[in-house]
Amino acid sequence: MKSEQYKTYLDESELPRAWYNLRADMKEKPAPLLNPETHLPVTAEELEKVFCKECVKQELDDTTREIPIPQGVLDFYKMYRPSPLVRAYFLEKALGTPAKIYYKFEGNNTSGSHKLNSAIAQAYYAKEQGLTDVTTETGAGQWGTALSMASAFYGLKCHVYMVKCSYEQKPFRREVMRTYGGDVTPSPSMTTEVGRRINAEHPGTTGSLGCAISEAVEAASKLPNSRYLLGSVLNQVCLHQSVIGLEAKTAFDKLGVKPDVIIGCAGGGSNLVGLIAPFMGEKLRGEADYRFIAVEPSSCPSLTRGKYAYDYCDTGKVCPLQKMYTLGSSYIPSASHAGGLRYHGMSATLSALYDQKYIEARSITQTEVFEAATLFARVEGTLPAPESAHAIRAAMDEALRCKKEGREETILFGLTGTGYFDMYAYARYNDGEMSDYIPTDEEILKAHERLPKIKV
Amino acid sequence: MKSEQYKTYLDESELPRAWYNLRADMKEKPAPLLNPETHLPVTAEELEKVFCKECVKQELDDTTREIPIPQGVLDFYKMYRPSPLVRAYFLEKALGTPAKIYYKFEGNNTSGSHKLNSAIAQAYYAKEQGLTDVTTETGAGQWGTALSMASAFYGLKCHVYMVKCSYEQKPFRREVMRTYGGDVTPSPSMTTEVGRRINAEHPGTTGSLGCAISEAVEAASKLPNSRYLLGSVLNQVCLHQSVIGLEAKTAFDKLGVKPDVIIGCAGGGSNLVGLIAPFMGEKLRGEADYRFIAVEPSSCPSLTRGKYAYDYCDTGKVCPLQKMYTLGSSYIPSASHAGGLRYHGMSATLSALYDQKYIEARSITQTEVFEAATLFARVEGTLPAPESAHAIRAAMDEALRCKKEGREETILFGLTGTGYFDMYAYARYNDGEMSDYIPTDEEILKAHERLPKIKV
Repeated sequence: MKSEQYKTYLDESELPRAWYNLRADMKEKPAPLLNPETHLPVTAEELEKVFCKECVKQELDDTTREIPIPQGVLDFYKMYRPSPLVRAYFLEKALGTPAKIYYKFEGNNTSGSHKLNSAIAQAYYAKEQGLTDVTTETGAGQWGTALSMASAFYGLKCHVYMVKCSYEQKPFRREVMRTYGGDVTPSPSMTTEVGRRINAEHPGTTGSLGCAISEAVEAASKLPNSRYLLGSVLNQVCLHQSVIGLEAKTAFDKLGVKPDVIIGCAGGGSNLVGLIAPFMGEKLRGEADYRFIAVEPSSCPSLTRGKYAYDYCDTGKVCPLQKMYTLGSSYIPSASHAGGLRYHGMSATLSALYDQKYIEARSITQTEVFEAATLFARVEGTLPAPESAHAIRAAMDEALRCKKEGREETILFGLTGTGYFDMYAYARYNDGEMSDYIPTDEEILKAHERLPKIKV
Repeated sequence: MKSEQYKTYLDESELPRAWYNLRADMKEKPAPLLNPETHLPVTAEELEKVFCKECVKQELDDTTREIPIPQGVLDFYKMYRPSPLVRAYFLEKALGTPAKIYYKFEGNNTSGSHKLNSAIAQAYYAKEQGLTDVTTETGAGQWGTALSMASAFYGLKCHVYMVKCSYEQKPFRREVMRTYGGDVTPSPSMTTEVGRRINAEHPGTTGSLGCAISEAVEAASKLPNSRYLLGSVLNQVCLHQSVIGLEAKTAFDKLGVKPDVIIGCAGGGSNLVGLIAPFMGEKLRGEADYRFIAVEPSSCPSLTRGKYAYDYCDTGKVCPLQKMYTLGSSYIPSASHAGGLRYHGMSATLSALYDQKYIEARSITQTEVFEAATLFARVEGTLPAPESAHAIRAAMDEALRCKKEGREETILFGLTGTGYFDMYAYARYNDGEMSDYIPTDEEILKAHERLPKIKV
């Protein structure tokens, strides 16, 4: 063990200079986004009313394999990247497994997660387009923090709609955003039409990402020089997050190691698609084989219990329709401590890959998640975000399977962020007060029945 | 700028394998610790009643230049080290300075600071000695978190006395320690004799590091198989923290760069001594010259307004006497948001070096500190701890001096930690409610008058 390397950092000269667009290597592409009124494939012109021009271009491009990272983004990336690829020696020892466990750690920046990878790209394009304001939603608060940071850097004003249950559980998250000049409104709020409508229909609701998205989109449309930026789900976000996988792949190649299983948590799906992108590319091109596992919370099981169908991305039904694994945009998941995974749907790319059987999925309960988080914190030092701990749990389960089967497999998981703003959740766990709500089949069916009827 | 390197990480093979004991190169050594009852130099035997055996050996050794880092500590170090040496390009640009600014960033671990460097060493020695429990104090909470982490790793039970004002401002700090199995008591408490006495003498006190130390020492003496561990001030802690400076020096040597000015915040002084150690060694040996600046809060100005004298390290007067710059152990600093710098005295090594004019010192107000912290967060991405922001402020002031004088100096400062658990303080600043209490001369004199009368 003495001579082993714990962490692998790339030199700055080895950092990716282009994002990898996984869709370019997919034979069956994700289905196109649809206009929510006409149900026809959405045009660039329509999307540009909501999103930045360059982001729209990236959103619709499913053929260009490599998309250069602008120099302004590369410079910012260098402030907090490369992120380390870490060998979890102490976790392996604690589990007594013959498996080799690695994780790609994206939490060493003030946003506390991988979200900064896309925030800085989107803010850069917003600034280039001459915008003055941007709006967004945030669940756990990581994306809102990331976008506040990126906005401060480029001198943009950032307006964040934060899911109410997270807003209440994480008072200090708001202060970080405020320190970066962002303003934060709990969602659903009374400041937008859609917020007022949702509040009226669901009195006392703790909100959802779907609600917050609708509010942020409406707010952007009412500001004079603004667009809406989204932290997950979209193709453009998956594209920006490919920097995670590209770095990981380069590091593994340097080490001469090939992972067998690659695991990530999945809320909207962007971190997972980003992590697996170059490996999945090899699999799609028939150059190598890997197992991929998406891990989601039992309380919001989009892949494992959702339907592959066209659905609204937001509760207010103002965004384009996307074909995805979804619980239905009317589904409001129970309050949970993994706010970042509390989304009714899943990225179109990830959904298509899951539908095409390239990826496995599993769901786990909060208690299982926090058991894994606590063990990981104690043996590996880093206190993980509850979202990230979904991946830790699955990695541990895979490592224990290897132990049982006597296999020396190599496991890679994405440790997307730190839990420093999730101590309310840890307190509940430490106090033995964690609830493990699993929706009933009836609830799931009811939400499915309200999916839009689309003929494609 | 494009081709410049932002962050320098050492390879794991380049990490230090021995700590550097700066005292070995000092011609005039720091004065010996004294027994608080006899006022005679304290013996190893006496110290071993309070501290671990191996730590006592290190505490008293002022001649061995290099002390090997045990393999068990090296392995843990590899989990979160090397820490990066970062070039603050964006801060330089924001200030418009010709100076080159570098910082050594110690915040990328769950304790949030450099404190882990000594915690893991001390916990290792405690375990080797066969102890089951350890006790300590914590101000801002960084040391308590670090020691809880280290204790969890080695299976020790950790008892933390946390300064009351920090305990109240940082509810989530307690949860991190708890997640690592630590138990946390606000100090002064009613669980120790000394705590009850201090509460009686100063009703409503918000506590101080000096009080918390006394309580932790008493608690250790009453547990069957326990010792007290201290997070700063002591020689052994400065020794362990030399890993910061050693890494920084190696990185600068690789870059072919020599810093002109080296800056650190100073509460007990250990991070600063650790950062400057190898550079100061060169200066003491006449091999190179550097300027060194210690930065402390105006509310607790041990170096700039203290007296160089023998004093108690703790309010309860149970620890050995140390010759140091001190405000007097009876001095209770006003509540401040830099809890880690709220200590009446200063490390003996740092005090001796300051007395011998090898180091400059300056004090700054909270408002100046948070102005610097906010600017730094926005341009460099990382949200600093209030303690660390003292060094940022001084580095910025030096960079602005360089701008005025047209000098291209190279500035290095220690960014000791992150501020993720200091959002209450940031909120006060964001709300314009920061107080800048500076003690009057009368207050300072009054505390000096109560210094013990020692004939040496």
